[in-house]
Amino acid sequence: MFTKLLIANRGEIAVRIIRACKEMGIYTVAVYSEADRESLHVALADQAICIGGPRAEESYLDGGRIVAAALATRAQAIHPGYGFLSENAEFAALCQKHGIVFIGPSAEIIAKMGDKDTARRLMKENGVPTTPGTDILKDAKEALEAAGKIGYPVFLKASAGGGGKGIRLVERPEEMERAFQTASNEAEKAFGDGRMYMEKYLNPVKHIEVQLLADEKGNTVCLGERECSIQRNNQKLIEESPSPAVSEEARKKLMETAARAARAAGYVNAGTVEFLMDRDGNFYFMEMNTRLQVEHPVSELVTGVDIVKWQIRIAAGVELDFTQEDIQVRGAAIECRINALGAGKVDFFHIPGGPWVRFDTFLYQGYDIPPYYDSMLGKMIVYSSTREEAIRKMQSALCELVVGGARNNIEDQIEIIRDERFKKGDYYTNFIASLGKNGA
Amino acid sequence: MFTKLLIANRGEIAVRIIRACKEMGIYTVAVYSEADRESLHVALADQAICIGGPRAEESYLDGGRIVAAALATRAQAIHPGYGFLSENAEFAALCQKHGIVFIGPSAEIIAKMGDKDTARRLMKENGVPTTPGTDILKDAKEALEAAGKIGYPVFLKASAGGGGKGIRLVERPEEMERAFQTASNEAEKAFGDGRMYMEKYLNPVKHIEVQLLADEKGNTVCLGERECSIQRNNQKLIEESPSPAVSEEARKKLMETAARAARAAGYVNAGTVEFLMDRDGNFYFMEMNTRLQVEHPVSELVTGVDIVKWQIRIAAGVELDFTQEDIQVRGAAIECRINALGAGKVDFFHIPGGPWVRFDTFLYQGYDIPPYYDSMLGKMIVYSSTREEAIRKMQSALCELVVGGARNNIEDQIEIIRDERFKKGDYYTNFIASLGKNGA
Repeated sequence: MFTKLLIANRGEIAVRIIRACKEMGIYTVAVYSEADRESLHVALADQAICIGGPRAEESYLDGGRIVAAALATRAQAIHPGYGFLSENAEFAALCQKHGIVFIGPSAEIIAKMGDKDTARRLMKENGVPTTPGTDILKDAKEALEAAGKIGYPVFLKASAGGGGKGIRLVERPEEMERAFQTASNEAEKAFGDGRMYMEKYLNPVKHIEVQLLADEKGNTVCLGERECSIQRNNQKLIEESPSPAVSEEARKKLMETAARAARAAGYVNAGTVEFLMDRDGNFYFMEMNTRLQVEHPVSELVTGVDIVKWQIRIAAGVELDFTQEDIQVRGAAIECRINALGAGKVDFFHIPGGPWVRFDTFLYQGYDIPPYYDSMLGKMIVYSSTREEAIRKMQSALCELVVGGARNNIEDQIEIIRDERFKKGDYYTNFIASLGKNGA
Repeated sequence: MFTKLLIANRGEIAVRIIRACKEMGIYTVAVYSEADRESLHVALADQAICIGGPRAEESYLDGGRIVAAALATRAQAIHPGYGFLSENAEFAALCQKHGIVFIGPSAEIIAKMGDKDTARRLMKENGVPTTPGTDILKDAKEALEAAGKIGYPVFLKASAGGGGKGIRLVERPEEMERAFQTASNEAEKAFGDGRMYMEKYLNPVKHIEVQLLADEKGNTVCLGERECSIQRNNQKLIEESPSPAVSEEARKKLMETAARAARAAGYVNAGTVEFLMDRDGNFYFMEMNTRLQVEHPVSELVTGVDIVKWQIRIAAGVELDFTQEDIQVRGAAIECRINALGAGKVDFFHIPGGPWVRFDTFLYQGYDIPPYYDSMLGKMIVYSSTREEAIRKMQSALCELVVGGARNNIEDQIEIIRDERFKKGDYYTNFIASLGKNGA
């Protein structure tokens, strides 16, 4: 096992990884930007190195500086968290080149699954259902022809996409030209890759994803599914496991399909296979995320598996000590993302406790939230034996949570949790739009 | 199910019960003393009633006022928590008389098990091993004769005892007269009952207890054992489940014995059977606690059963929906009690989070801790797949916990957790004394 590990991230996920390392007896090195001197991950790590300016490009996205910090501190491994460099194949290759273990799949697999077009093709070849759509489109003209065959509305998607960038919904032929150009430009700017493909727009549809762990020996185990259909502008707001819309039988099929997808890709470490599921329960491969996800805790609570610890173990060559048969999805877990609606200083902070209530955060009393990064302040996660009780527990926990001094979306989340459609599990990715509001 | 419940307690356990009620959709009524106006349980409950002065006798121990508060607010049930009136048979009877459900066993069972001599006899009759000892002793002379037969050292114990009161260790015959008189006087003063009995003093010995739930239909299910040998002056400091000294086979036998003891008593609701276990693994019935215990969370974490919710359900006549065969003790949970070493105002407060870290407390930023009550500020509870990792998780969680402004025992707890004997599970009730210190 590693004796020292560097965390190439900030915020709640850096804190989460540091805590896992402490539990495993691994020394930790934090890296931080000039804006993050007072951040919790810096205080908790055994060592901390400032790697540059506040803007992410000057620090958390600068792979060279991060690798230099790992070499200087003799860290044997780097955990990239989510976001930033976590799905950057070049960074993974850079780590490898310098003899540092990148905690995640190899650069080759990241590149292969990161190219959405290649991934879709790989899935089709291995009998994994994909949304009706196209390969890479030459131009807007080809897109127009394809859409005519598939039927409107369609989604234009950047092959290198992620985080909702480079995506356009096209409802009529006359919108195609402009949508193609703006999305492609956006993707070029965000990912350095403007290639686009098309998918049929399924509506209403649920976002269902399968968490898996795969070790170097080829053991692949799925940890049930998560439903993440509560989204605003393709950003998830609430996630739960299991999905209230997935039957025991469908779960088995989903997990088999996800495991097949992972094996087809030669996948190693933690990963997530994302599917769209229509009203009739048909599911279609959307993409595979080759990293830890924000919403991993709900899978941890229903399966009892610590995903971050297993990421680290797998990267160190440890074999999974459980099989698919050992995994039972028990009870129900829900996560609500608590987002800032503006900067601020945390002048009063109260976290609810009690059984199976978990608030993963990097906030502390007196912390001045820097304006440079993601708006997420924390994740309220609850678990109970039934979904009904988990919903009430979440409601109670959100009502108790106080983040004073920083405007946030706690009230909005309570409203969703109390919505009858949410309670019934009868919700789709258009849920937030259907509320007709513009809050966080 | 009840629609409204009154909590006849304060501190972390009142908060714990209120949260359980919220999750179950039950309205809550808090009662509080004049010293507790700013207490968290008052803020969290749906309704709150001041029942008297700061001294417990004027408020939390005044059963009449509490029942009056329940009648005034139309609460259908009262949860007594632990301490205060939780094992007071007269209070349970008073509730019953006024048509209010007391959440716990009947007044008759509380009285029967509260009388240590009666309980011991009941156990003997039902084949439950008890420590070699006597029935009620007439006087010091009879005690001297008995000790001669049993062999020194012996324990003199008050029949009505609890919380370490009315207990004396007698190592030589010449100490007997004085020990008998002072312990009997102490018991007379504390419980209004000066009757004494004698038990052989086992040393070194472990404190092992079995948590159980029993419903009105006679279903009795044990939730594994807890080891609570880390004590100072008979006050528990650290508890864990499972015990590192109890084998799978011994656990089965312990649980069978505890279930037999509960059935023999006609027990209903949550209860705990306490045993002493010597080095050879022999165990002896000590007493049965007819209430929720401080350390219940460790059993919750290893079994997945919410004990407080089940207490309420059982009191409402709900049958257990699981059997002994469904209960599996998985992983390892540890609880460290965080105690105040003096009064103070909480000027900085930081709680660790992450997977399976739970801090049950009633503190909040700015809270002025009143000097009138129990010194416990909170309970740090962790769970992991192995005991080794749970110990490291506890160490990490305690290092992260900050309760600024109130002197406390966090450092002392870290020292115990790091002790080699604790790590090996090779510890007995004399552990704290063996450290030769007088801290918390």
